[in-house]
Amino acid sequence: MADDKLILWGRGSGRTMRVRWMLEEFGLTYDIKPIQSRTGETQTDTYAAINPKQKIPTLQHGDIVITESPAIISYIADNFDTPQGFYVPEDPQSRAKVNEWCFFSAMELDAHTIYIIRRHEGLPEIYGQAPDAVASAREYYLKQANAVAAQVATGGTYLFGELFSIADIMLATCLNAGLRYNIELPKALDAYLARAESRPSYRRAFDLNYEGLRT
Amino acid sequence: MADDKLILWGRGSGRTMRVRWMLEEFGLTYDIKPIQSRTGETQTDTYAAINPKQKIPTLQHGDIVITESPAIISYIADNFDTPQGFYVPEDPQSRAKVNEWCFFSAMELDAHTIYIIRRHEGLPEIYGQAPDAVASAREYYLKQANAVAAQVATGGTYLFGELFSIADIMLATCLNAGLRYNIELPKALDAYLARAESRPSYRRAFDLNYEGLRT
Repeated sequence: MADDKLILWGRGSGRTMRVRWMLEEFGLTYDIKPIQSRTGETQTDTYAAINPKQKIPTLQHGDIVITESPAIISYIADNFDTPQGFYVPEDPQSRAKVNEWCFFSAMELDAHTIYIIRRHEGLPEIYGQAPDAVASAREYYLKQANAVAAQVATGGTYLFGELFSIADIMLATCLNAGLRYNIELPKALDAYLARAESRPSYRRAFDLNYEGLRT
Repeated sequence: MADDKLILWGRGSGRTMRVRWMLEEFGLTYDIKPIQSRTGETQTDTYAAINPKQKIPTLQHGDIVITESPAIISYIADNFDTPQGFYVPEDPQSRAKVNEWCFFSAMELDAHTIYIIRRHEGLPEIYGQAPDAVASAREYYLKQANAVAAQVATGGTYLFGELFSIADIMLATCLNAGLRYNIELPKALDAYLARAESRPSYRRAFDLNYEGLRT
């Protein structure tokens, strides 16, 4: 099972970055199918048969196909040997807290905030102008970031102390996206993000995910 | 632990409905703090101390506080005796598939679609008009619903066959929200939703969640 081949579909987006980061954290060997959004590569019949939602990333592991970036990194955490310094709690209460941070980041800092800014500020030629929606999304992002800043600051190096977790990958990639859209983060989150992005696994994943796409 | 008191904060929204439904499914006894969004009740110091994000729902279970509706229902699934007819898989692969559907529903059918329609079509006096964002959200919702309709249809009665799961609660509440915003669902999803909403636990939860708020 654990020896089956891993194939990651996708590169170049914040969501594919999460999976890269996790694979690098866990020191796993994987093949990459470097398809991107908006190139038409997700619209082929071959890819639709693997992921009918035609989005990236998708992870294949032997016969298993997992989509949705937080579900993929959770799958990796639960199915492979935990490296030193990584936190994969076993008890249901601690798992629920990891899960809570993953859903918070995915819903509040990604899906209805950054994703909206991306569509209506970054790609208005495709999705149309919606300045009120963008302004509302920016305001909401900052409100939610401020609401959790105190909790992040008390965690220690990461959300759950000195150990790093999938919740940190979710939160850090969402904070990074905020910065890219010029949202000024609360200081505690800025410092947290700098700690997360100083991990060697982040640098390796970043280079692999974005190589040739950014300078 | 399992005997500690359960307190649910929140009523009247689709997100609080998920937790009610789950509590009714599991036949659990709980207290309710019936605070609502947009009444100012989430903005008190008392509530901010419990949930700094000042959103509903929040579940308290003894000393444990869990926020984010999908994380809450996942917590209930993992911490209480599973009733007959409910699906809480133990193996990591099956758990990942449940997780995938939860994140798909939360991100793709709720956060950056229904939530945007709610804000900019339902509450433009607060969030501003954004017709392009609303149109884009409607189109996107339908595209994603169509993409998964075939998978839903082959599952059986529910996503994973005859047993009901937290993934069904997530998907069904998101489909219900689409209907409320007059999105015409693919037939297979309409039929699936009708099956899910025919459960006695749904009817009980609906009455409790919306009593006095809707006719």
